[in-house]
Amino acid sequence: MTSKKIKVGIVGGTGYTGVELLRLLAIHPDVELTAITSRGEAGMPVAEMFPSLRGFVDLAFSDPGTANLTACDVVFFATPHGVAMSQAKALLAANVKVIDLAADFRLQDTAVFEKWYKMPHSCPDVLVDAVYGIPELYREKIKSAQVVGNPGCYPTTVLLGLAPLLEQGLIDFSAPIIADSKSGVSGAGRKAEVATLFAEASDTMRAYGVSGHRHHPEIHAQLTNLAGSDVQFVFVPHLIPMIRGMLSTIYVKLTDKAKVVDLQALYQQRYQHESFVDVMPAGSLPETRSVRGSNVLRIALHSQVQTGYLTLVVVQDNLVKGAAGQAVQNMNIMFGLAESAGLGVVPLLP
Amino acid sequence: MTSKKIKVGIVGGTGYTGVELLRLLAIHPDVELTAITSRGEAGMPVAEMFPSLRGFVDLAFSDPGTANLTACDVVFFATPHGVAMSQAKALLAANVKVIDLAADFRLQDTAVFEKWYKMPHSCPDVLVDAVYGIPELYREKIKSAQVVGNPGCYPTTVLLGLAPLLEQGLIDFSAPIIADSKSGVSGAGRKAEVATLFAEASDTMRAYGVSGHRHHPEIHAQLTNLAGSDVQFVFVPHLIPMIRGMLSTIYVKLTDKAKVVDLQALYQQRYQHESFVDVMPAGSLPETRSVRGSNVLRIALHSQVQTGYLTLVVVQDNLVKGAAGQAVQNMNIMFGLAESAGLGVVPLLP
Amino acid sequence: MTSKKIKVGIVGGTGYTGVELLRLLAIHPDVELTAITSRGEAGMPVAEMFPSLRGFVDLAFSDPGTANLTACDVVFFATPHGVAMSQAKALLAANVKVIDLAADFRLQDTAVFEKWYKMPHSCPDVLVDAVYGIPELYREKIKSAQVVGNPGCYPTTVLLGLAPLLEQGLIDFSAPIIADSKSGVSGAGRKAEVATLFAEASDTMRAYGVSGHRHHPEIHAQLTNLAGSDVQFVFVPHLIPMIRGMLSTIYVKLTDKAKVVDLQALYQQRYQHESFVDVMPAGSLPETRSVRGSNVLRIALHSQVQTGYLTLVVVQDNLVKGAAGQAVQNMNIMFGLAESAGLGVVPLLP
Amino acid sequence: MTSKKIKVGIVGGTGYTGVELLRLLAIHPDVELTAITSRGEAGMPVAEMFPSLRGFVDLAFSDPGTANLTACDVVFFATPHGVAMSQAKALLAANVKVIDLAADFRLQDTAVFEKWYKMPHSCPDVLVDAVYGIPELYREKIKSAQVVGNPGCYPTTVLLGLAPLLEQGLIDFSAPIIADSKSGVSGAGRKAEVATLFAEASDTMRAYGVSGHRHHPEIHAQLTNLAGSDVQFVFVPHLIPMIRGMLSTIYVKLTDKAKVVDLQALYQQRYQHESFVDVMPAGSLPETRSVRGSNVLRIALHSQVQTGYLTLVVVQDNLVKGAAGQAVQNMNIMFGLAESAGLGVVPLLP
Repeated sequence: MTSKKIKVGIVGGTGYTGVELLRLLAIHPDVELTAITSRGEAGMPVAEMFPSLRGFVDLAFSDPGTANLTACDVVFFATPHGVAMSQAKALLAANVKVIDLAADFRLQDTAVFEKWYKMPHSCPDVLVDAVYGIPELYREKIKSAQVVGNPGCYPTTVLLGLAPLLEQGLIDFSAPIIADSKSGVSGAGRKAEVATLFAEASDTMRAYGVSGHRHHPEIHAQLTNLAGSDVQFVFVPHLIPMIRGMLSTIYVKLTDKAKVVDLQALYQQRYQHESFVDVMPAGSLPETRSVRGSNVLRIALHSQVQTGYLTLVVVQDNLVKGAAGQAVQNMNIMFGLAESAGLGVVPLLP
Repeated sequence: MTSKKIKVGIVGGTGYTGVELLRLLAIHPDVELTAITSRGEAGMPVAEMFPSLRGFVDLAFSDPGTANLTACDVVFFATPHGVAMSQAKALLAANVKVIDLAADFRLQDTAVFEKWYKMPHSCPDVLVDAVYGIPELYREKIKSAQVVGNPGCYPTTVLLGLAPLLEQGLIDFSAPIIADSKSGVSGAGRKAEVATLFAEASDTMRAYGVSGHRHHPEIHAQLTNLAGSDVQFVFVPHLIPMIRGMLSTIYVKLTDKAKVVDLQALYQQRYQHESFVDVMPAGSLPETRSVRGSNVLRIALHSQVQTGYLTLVVVQDNLVKGAAGQAVQNMNIMFGLAESAGLGVVPLLP
Repeated sequence: MTSKKIKVGIVGGTGYTGVELLRLLAIHPDVELTAITSRGEAGMPVAEMFPSLRGFVDLAFSDPGTANLTACDVVFFATPHGVAMSQAKALLAANVKVIDLAADFRLQDTAVFEKWYKMPHSCPDVLVDAVYGIPELYREKIKSAQVVGNPGCYPTTVLLGLAPLLEQGLIDFSAPIIADSKSGVSGAGRKAEVATLFAEASDTMRAYGVSGHRHHPEIHAQLTNLAGSDVQFVFVPHLIPMIRGMLSTIYVKLTDKAKVVDLQALYQQRYQHESFVDVMPAGSLPETRSVRGSNVLRIALHSQVQTGYLTLVVVQDNLVKGAAGQAVQNMNIMFGLAESAGLGVVPLLP
Repeated sequence: MTSKKIKVGIVGGTGYTGVELLRLLAIHPDVELTAITSRGEAGMPVAEMFPSLRGFVDLAFSDPGTANLTACDVVFFATPHGVAMSQAKALLAANVKVIDLAADFRLQDTAVFEKWYKMPHSCPDVLVDAVYGIPELYREKIKSAQVVGNPGCYPTTVLLGLAPLLEQGLIDFSAPIIADSKSGVSGAGRKAEVATLFAEASDTMRAYGVSGHRHHPEIHAQLTNLAGSDVQFVFVPHLIPMIRGMLSTIYVKLTDKAKVVDLQALYQQRYQHESFVDVMPAGSLPETRSVRGSNVLRIALHSQVQTGYLTLVVVQDNLVKGAAGQAVQNMNIMFGLAESAGLGVVPLLP
């Protein structure tokens, strides 16, 4: 390949989405890692903090204040909510594309954003042009996007799980859609907190955020968008004692029309050209480990004939298709690369 | 204490429910362990197979053929389905009570039993007098029962979670009841199988039995019994990488009447005198480890006001309230002991 | 029992040794929990922080400044190093016994203490009368002790593992004693730290403290005391992805005399009257789970005949015999109770 | 690349080393997977048994009796001990190279093989020309080998950990070398056994094979070979609740000469050109997860100055550098490929 490599910057490289971006980008054939910032760890070689990257990443963390991010072609924000929107404008002005892995560019309704994230949105003018980064739903817009709001992990499973039904109008909205989701503990981030200590979070599980989780409004907005009308949605996330992995079990009431459709065929057809959405054979029950470390999301359909409900089981690696991998997929699209470039990792099993 | 101890036999002492019975009964103040059988391990001291019992259990496994079970006051069956029903009659004839931890005496409809367990029921005459062993629902009948069918682990969570609503007629049956249940791996038993090896079942999770799980008809029968009419029920169990612990997230549509009832108060009142059902304060989200090793089941209620749905989160230790502990609770009732005798273990946390 | 209950205070009840004391003392027949302090959580009901204690502990955390600890008969310190020594004098003056689960009263040499704990020892006059709390080694002194320095978790395994050999002079000190120890993650405490997060500490392991661990001088001092001369000692602890449990593999060179001694018999005889030290049958290899939640420590001996070395495998629950359980055992001795009072928990397996 | 791809066969593709070979070879640029056999699963698509390989491996398992292995350039045996030696001759006659991941070609002394593996060696004439497959020790011989005995997992850590000392004569053999090794549970293989069930092997650990492990003679033979004289060796393996990963802590007595050598520099120099041996900076303590999924082995040195001992900490992924990865590395050497071809996976962290 003779083309020039894409210069990539990562703001906030010390969390799990940051190190996951590094894992993927370190061997991406078209990428040159240019800057990785960390306020707290400036000066420390990246591979000293993450020895898994010894021999793959030679950079040191640089200070966010002095890092020359405007020399990059694209900057990923693997930061807390609120950081990307404070820096996006300056980067865009320097012709740098932005992919935010936090929530700053996911919700078009700034009132909703402010309610759930407890901060005003600082650049609604940028937001209005930002694209919600699920390639299988918004690929054309992503191609020309300057700013991508990379989706939350839970939303990716629910939206890709339901899209074929929503697109075909096969859900009976007289009952709420129910998503019972389960996430590995890495989803809570690499933050010093008692609740996610090994001795607190292993050999146990719990539901959380039942009274309101930030991914609820995000999913709700997208469901409503795809359905074309307001959708009732019940969402209960659970914390599971595994490092990576996410499984959403989704219960939907089918329309009478849906009951005579071959839903398995519908899903297979809808996703037949997608590299990263795998519709499992009828009767399958995918495990989260079947996608460990990979950007693939798998979907299985199970009809509950007696009740008129369909149960969907969707699995992904929350750090890959649910975060960093999808972000790289978006980058590939934004720069006209092969969509699967750098994303050919075989899942690690066992 | 001057009263005579109850002579207890255990058939099938080498599985997880067997060793759990031993853990509880070894320090039960009113029990004398009399015989523990195992076809495969006859002659081996129990504490050699389970060193955790060194100093607590001096018995050796005895051969099922020669064990003098008729000298017992009660025999627990911690065996595969089908064993208890083949031996119950002889024991009853010898005035020995029977508590079966398998499914032989759970389903009154023998056709349903035969469909799901692939064997004819060999003693329907005994079955007809057997009591389904959830004390909080059937305490009076258990008091005089000669045979108790100890419930499945999943059914215990679903039935105790829903009983107050069902008893008061507060569920709108126009939508199915949905139970999304999660179980630790010990629920699969102590059987040599690839699927539950550590390297297969850790750091991953999966749904299973979506097309039909044996606890579905058991729950369905009891729900219908409690509701007084046929109930639509969707049940998806999941395997979680933890040893013990079970959490059921239950989604029910409330009747209009229910929407003006103080459901939290209803539950607290319903279970206020129960030692082993703990209604959590409003807003709580109990972890499975909060009951690790104990016979307590905890329930939390979360209303989804917008959708008219109620979400229940129910946790238990699948081997205790979900199996051996509930069996001991039943024994205590059958013999007129304090219901909590021998069941005062403090949960192990962390 | 007609005797008055012992009034117990716990300073620092929110860490793992604190909650473990609560688990054991909540059902101790001779104890009345009187005060549990926590600077950060004063006012919060204990059972709200630890729902596992619902129904067992009714107290709320009280402020260390206002808690009436002098009304207690004994106060346990489950605090960071340095707290107990700052409060011991006042308590002793009020005739309250002190059991410190931190290091303040473990090392008689204050220079060594100050080197490893980076603080001056504030009450050497109290220290000089403090007893090192391994009952199997120092029971007589503990009976009359006012202050007990409860041992570290690692030292308990190494010292009880080696005591019979040291007492009989059977170790050849021309080679160092090597202890390769492995601990569950709860040993790191209930502190918000990145290194012990679930996603950092599960499915991986590491050695730590190789260049110097605080338990090295503690073990060294006791080994030297038991041997009667200076002992070379190599100690490498490892962090293992399990909640509880500690296993030390100890390699010692035997004297020529030892090679003709029946060491298995020696160990069995040495510990035959001990409730909490279990010498396993020859050839055994105990698992840590065989003591999960219990105060028992198990020892297995394996001679390496060709090399003249003996390998000892010692397991305990780091939070019980390695901390809170041993502290309760010490309390029982100090107050003339049955040594095993309140410590009859059957290990939780699986 | 215009060169012809290497045709690879795998005998025994359903165990962990088999699926790990598939993970690595599926994306190896110079390999064409030609046949994967399994007696029990013939006809089943590989990706049906291992959904992680969906989209990467299109082959089905074929019957060992009918698979056309002689059409391959190389055949890997990921089988129980004894299979490779029964088929090696026929393959060699057809000009097919053989890499055995079991023990058939590891021990040159057939009496030792027969003692430990309880079967006669069926082709000592092939064995005599087989090369022990640690490239960093025997690269030149591997280049021209027709048969490679891929080393055991434990031996790889011990031998690469000690080689620089042995080559320079820096170990004082008056004391035994002690290797305290820890392995993840995948090392026990993908066999239906109670002892390695999730509920048996998680949240616990144990030593095993203390009285004799098959890797002891293998390590002993190689140590003696490298040292040029008989070496005393104590080896205690432990089972750790993690899927993958191996850590050996090795204790050696240094010669007086060694005490004045810069051992850190010695190791760095010895392995400076090795892609897959990483000498960590002084003071490091590598975690097993730092090599999860990768072929890298990391070594850290810690001198115990007072005792004259050196402690080595060596980590690897037991399924990669400890098995399948090293086998692929050997294949690369045997066929004149870049030694790291297909082995550029970044470790998966977290």
